[in-house]
Amino acid sequence: MKITMAHGSGGDSTSKLISGVFAKYFSNEYLDKFGDSSVVPGAAKIAMTTDSFVVKPVFFPGGDIGRLSVCGTVNDLLMSGAVPKYLTAGFILEEGLEVSDLEKIVESLQKTAEEAGVQIVTGDTKVVEKGTAESGLIINTSGVGIVPEGIEFGTDKLQTGDKIIVSGNMGDHHAAILGSRLGIENDIKSDAAPLTEMVSRLLESGIKIRAMRDVTRGGLGTVLNEFAESSEKEIRVEEELIPVSPAVRDFCGILGLDVLYMGNEGKMIVVVAPEDEDKAYEIIRGSKYGENAVCIGEVMGESDSPALVLRTEIGGLRKVGPLYGEGLPRIC
Amino acid sequence: MKITMAHGSGGDSTSKLISGVFAKYFSNEYLDKFGDSSVVPGAAKIAMTTDSFVVKPVFFPGGDIGRLSVCGTVNDLLMSGAVPKYLTAGFILEEGLEVSDLEKIVESLQKTAEEAGVQIVTGDTKVVEKGTAESGLIINTSGVGIVPEGIEFGTDKLQTGDKIIVSGNMGDHHAAILGSRLGIENDIKSDAAPLTEMVSRLLESGIKIRAMRDVTRGGLGTVLNEFAESSEKEIRVEEELIPVSPAVRDFCGILGLDVLYMGNEGKMIVVVAPEDEDKAYEIIRGSKYGENAVCIGEVMGESDSPALVLRTEIGGLRKVGPLYGEGLPRIC
Repeated sequence: MKITMAHGSGGDSTSKLISGVFAKYFSNEYLDKFGDSSVVPGAAKIAMTTDSFVVKPVFFPGGDIGRLSVCGTVNDLLMSGAVPKYLTAGFILEEGLEVSDLEKIVESLQKTAEEAGVQIVTGDTKVVEKGTAESGLIINTSGVGIVPEGIEFGTDKLQTGDKIIVSGNMGDHHAAILGSRLGIENDIKSDAAPLTEMVSRLLESGIKIRAMRDVTRGGLGTVLNEFAESSEKEIRVEEELIPVSPAVRDFCGILGLDVLYMGNEGKMIVVVAPEDEDKAYEIIRGSKYGENAVCIGEVMGESDSPALVLRTEIGGLRKVGPLYGEGLPRIC
Repeated sequence: MKITMAHGSGGDSTSKLISGVFAKYFSNEYLDKFGDSSVVPGAAKIAMTTDSFVVKPVFFPGGDIGRLSVCGTVNDLLMSGAVPKYLTAGFILEEGLEVSDLEKIVESLQKTAEEAGVQIVTGDTKVVEKGTAESGLIINTSGVGIVPEGIEFGTDKLQTGDKIIVSGNMGDHHAAILGSRLGIENDIKSDAAPLTEMVSRLLESGIKIRAMRDVTRGGLGTVLNEFAESSEKEIRVEEELIPVSPAVRDFCGILGLDVLYMGNEGKMIVVVAPEDEDKAYEIIRGSKYGENAVCIGEVMGESDSPALVLRTEIGGLRKVGPLYGEGLPRIC
């Protein structure tokens, strides 16, 4: 069965799609009421985020758009210190999409939501003409998390001497999507993953976290430039310490890609006080998805022109800007 | 200037678009932090909703996709008894979109948010290839509202004898979109409107509200069928009382449309206890966007096959199902 325009009408066919596919996997006490909105328990401080996913292709090595749309949103919530709780799911389906493909994506989305500790509490379905979404579907997930008392970190809180830890290999998601589009056969898989466990262990540890940030579109180079700008300090990174798998390094070599600007979907940077470096490193290494974590550099002094500076493998210093121009389109 | 794929890269160009267009209009204490998520004050009970807007064309008589994307989401929150507070805005832009058009839409979105009493607290921008979004852009808005204590209504709470009030003329939005696509010249304007004032006045009045529902895609026929189904009661409506403007009535006549299935974007149904009919009616009539409100029918007894039954103008009874099949695509 294929999606038709009628599935977006808001009538009878929409109801059948909702009960037959969405409710089948997402079922929970909130969603099952099928209201236009869902009432859920809140908290004194909540975090909100939104992300639309236009990735092409929708199935790729290591994941699919369903898994991605949970990871992206959950990780954004985690980075503000929130405990992710509820997601909304907005589906923009292309006429002609195979319902069996949609079902696989919905199942993957639900599985990832369970892993991430969140519930899909409300949703929306629209259908657009064939050729419109191009990849078959677009998903928007918006998320709400609960912010515990005492969370006080941010990219403006960096102090001289702070250590910069990256939670794992860079570039896997980017290389998996690009390889898949180019039809290149290799073992590279997307790193799409929810970082709930890693972050909650860090928060529970009492470590002085200055800032956390997931490294997605724009890559490490863009994120660390934002860190430099908001803290008004130089960020210095040892180029040879940036973790990259051999397969991705080869892939980059062949295609002339710079791993500094490659997107990821299950990696983050944590900046901690120098005395907490070892503890933070151990926690991340011991977490799911953190086995390749490395401390790649540190926060230097105030700077009039704050920037990301790379110490190259031969010892020189190189100023590195944020991603300029296109990057790889529709990576997430 | 036109949107390019680079505006979706997550790098330098994305930042410029955010600061030059989005931040210019949406500026507020939460959004201005430019985090991947925003931390806002919460409450013990919150309501969440999501809606994607794929309307074609994006500018239409009486509104645009920006206004629509606030009204749809705010009204969904209101219908659950929540006070709408925060919206997220996810933009999926088509390469080639004129930035001046985007700016008009963003300005309209912000103006409508102010009217509705909500803030845009976080956002996301993606760019897709030309020909993909077809209409130029798609917007997802997700919303969070605060649910006051003591809110207890829902479509399963209807009681025999309850009165069904519709807040104004049916079909305006549907007719405006369709007329615009067909190039028909007339005075019909979309009714897209946030119902914040009307609903807050109803809630403050102490009236016994059984259920509220905005009448959007699928129209009055579909919504009242859902009421019948969840309450397991017959819903009886006087056909001649359904409010329709002369222009829309003519438009329907010419094109053979049934106003029962036409979508609206600023209209709702309120079901109240019979003793509160007059008071509710007066409040709605006295509210912005409520001047054409009418009590169109009532809730009958339990039924083995609960349905919407129309009393026709010549006195006969006619069972009416929900919208079956396509409806008008991309109306919202």
